[in-house]
Amino acid sequence: MKTQVAIIGAGPAGLLLGQLLHKAGIDSVILERQTPDYVLSRIRAGVLEQGTADLLREAGASTRMDAEGLLHDGFELVLNGRRERIDLKALTGGKQVMVYGQTEVTRDLMQARAASGAMSVYEAADVELHDVTCEKPYVTFTHQGEHVRLDCDYIAGCDGFHGVARRSIPVERLKTFERVYPFGWLGLLSDTPPVNHELIYASSERGFSLCSQRSVTRSRYYLQVGLDEKVEDWSDERFWEELKRRIPEDAARQLITGPSLEKSIAPLRSFVVEPLQYGRLFLVGDAGHIVPPTGAKGLNLAASDVDALHRILVKVYGEGRTDLLEQYSPIALRRIWKAERFSWWMTSMLHQFPDSDAFTRRMLETELDYFLGSEAGRTTIAENYVGLPFEEVA
Amino acid sequence: MKTQVAIIGAGPAGLLLGQLLHKAGIDSVILERQTPDYVLSRIRAGVLEQGTADLLREAGASTRMDAEGLLHDGFELVLNGRRERIDLKALTGGKQVMVYGQTEVTRDLMQARAASGAMSVYEAADVELHDVTCEKPYVTFTHQGEHVRLDCDYIAGCDGFHGVARRSIPVERLKTFERVYPFGWLGLLSDTPPVNHELIYASSERGFSLCSQRSVTRSRYYLQVGLDEKVEDWSDERFWEELKRRIPEDAARQLITGPSLEKSIAPLRSFVVEPLQYGRLFLVGDAGHIVPPTGAKGLNLAASDVDALHRILVKVYGEGRTDLLEQYSPIALRRIWKAERFSWWMTSMLHQFPDSDAFTRRMLETELDYFLGSEAGRTTIAENYVGLPFEEVA
Repeated sequence: MKTQVAIIGAGPAGLLLGQLLHKAGIDSVILERQTPDYVLSRIRAGVLEQGTADLLREAGASTRMDAEGLLHDGFELVLNGRRERIDLKALTGGKQVMVYGQTEVTRDLMQARAASGAMSVYEAADVELHDVTCEKPYVTFTHQGEHVRLDCDYIAGCDGFHGVARRSIPVERLKTFERVYPFGWLGLLSDTPPVNHELIYASSERGFSLCSQRSVTRSRYYLQVGLDEKVEDWSDERFWEELKRRIPEDAARQLITGPSLEKSIAPLRSFVVEPLQYGRLFLVGDAGHIVPPTGAKGLNLAASDVDALHRILVKVYGEGRTDLLEQYSPIALRRIWKAERFSWWMTSMLHQFPDSDAFTRRMLETELDYFLGSEAGRTTIAENYVGLPFEEVA
Repeated sequence: MKTQVAIIGAGPAGLLLGQLLHKAGIDSVILERQTPDYVLSRIRAGVLEQGTADLLREAGASTRMDAEGLLHDGFELVLNGRRERIDLKALTGGKQVMVYGQTEVTRDLMQARAASGAMSVYEAADVELHDVTCEKPYVTFTHQGEHVRLDCDYIAGCDGFHGVARRSIPVERLKTFERVYPFGWLGLLSDTPPVNHELIYASSERGFSLCSQRSVTRSRYYLQVGLDEKVEDWSDERFWEELKRRIPEDAARQLITGPSLEKSIAPLRSFVVEPLQYGRLFLVGDAGHIVPPTGAKGLNLAASDVDALHRILVKVYGEGRTDLLEQYSPIALRRIWKAERFSWWMTSMLHQFPDSDAFTRRMLETELDYFLGSEAGRTTIAENYVGLPFEEVA
């Protein structure tokens, strides 16, 4: 088999890249270890920056998003029971975010890819990258018992934190930055109307909680929990009771509970490797960087990586601008670091850290108090939440 | 002896409070352990917020400040050799800071107090506070071999971090918040023109440095140094050489060096006790809280404490509003915590921390980079640097 760009991973990053390349007449093959149903069963983020939504429109995969997605003008932050609204639209000169589940984004992109006729290979096992630093790299994998070789010009590693792409780069070529947080998020999905028409990020002495949503009838709630907590110890009833104690009283009174459709615990991690290029391999999205979910940046960062990489590849194939290839990593990393900072900051402000001293706790509380009380402070939160601009490819 | 308000400490906090009380017809006695010359020999901060300058005017001790002080519209922050100006005036709707040494403030206040005829007792030894939680507190001390008792209505503890006032409060009545930083500041005072017409706060891989000034002919420079460093190991030549390596190249070329008038190393500490009231004793300035000098908040916080306390005392004596006394601590602390946050933030952003990991270092660098590049971010810096508003006493 032969293609121009081999894309490892059929998550939203890989699918979006494939779709944008297809629009530009560049051929790609997507290799995915799992089945489509498995990919779609993963519940992930639900807040799209305007730039991400625009990129989905550019990829031709936005019809359902534009029909069903909810545009939000703001969100709430809660400190000591006090609700403060971050008026995104007013503070950023009109920008909004789109509430639309990552699962739905993936589904739309899968359908667009199927319609395009471009090749995706699901259940591709034993994927290995070869000759990545040479002129003619290739990927091998096993599919339905058969050993397959895929020759290509470039490889996009869109296969997430645990994928093969990053592991194919010699350790000594990557600089790693990492912070593992001493807590996780317990998430619950339910077919209940959201407690508030906008998201609520709430700090409390009992720990952080987030009231999120996927639609006007489907809610997603999260609780900060210890790393030793197990999902099976959290009955729906216990979850709802704990949530009510962490959100403001008026919200707790309005909360409509119901049976969970899904419950899971995710650890929180900040992670970046530098650079994001190794020869003809490019790391995109979670393969190269992880943010904690506070601030909803994970999927949006994958989108800005894809934005930079596909624009570079279009100029490489269209204008022979191979000199741009080495711009991918610095362009992507500049935006990644800013989003890592915002996610780290939001995480630090809103969670209880078991080992922090009294001074640090008070500093973080004061920082949140100051930022909420200052228009300039609220603007820094708003401009990061709606997403800092995508960088142009020169 | 008898007075209305016994003031412990003849630093700028005690002197300013005494002066403002005097203007309102309230009698005070100031007790100071040292001689006036000793007090004046301490080199301290040099940047006054507009609110502080206004309070000195209200106290009638501003003639020389208004003649000799330098109004600054901005200052510079340096990240990786890149100079970024914080345009205080533009970002805060016209506010400025006044560069005028704390030593000069103290001298002006001493002269004003002498002119007022109010009593100050220097070289007051063995100061002890008594019956602080009763109707009639008193202070005892030894002066020129004589044991003296000073009866009073209220006691203002303006005697700094190491003073007797805070130590007179039972430990279990105070909640302490503290951070000791793993470095100090080596300061050098010289009669050389400042390298720049505004202050330069510079982060660098070799550590933080600050190019400050007291007048157009007198400069004050600082270097971050390890806690084990000794002043005697720092010749003037070594100081200047190190400074040149930490500031931007163009500044280093313009730097005019000269013999030091003074050199000293100060540790950096964040410290707050709560509450700032114990019976009829009120902690003011460094007696109740310390900030690291990054951000120039120490003297200015003492001024806002004095502002709140003298306004309350004026209403207590003038209108019988003793109910206001318990407002002092919460009013003062709200502003103190915000200034503690800013000082901690500036310190964290600009210094090298010997034990921080790669992720934390990159986060702090990114945070500074983001704040400098965002107008909202620069505004948060500016509005804190010129000073958040003094709170009204209701």
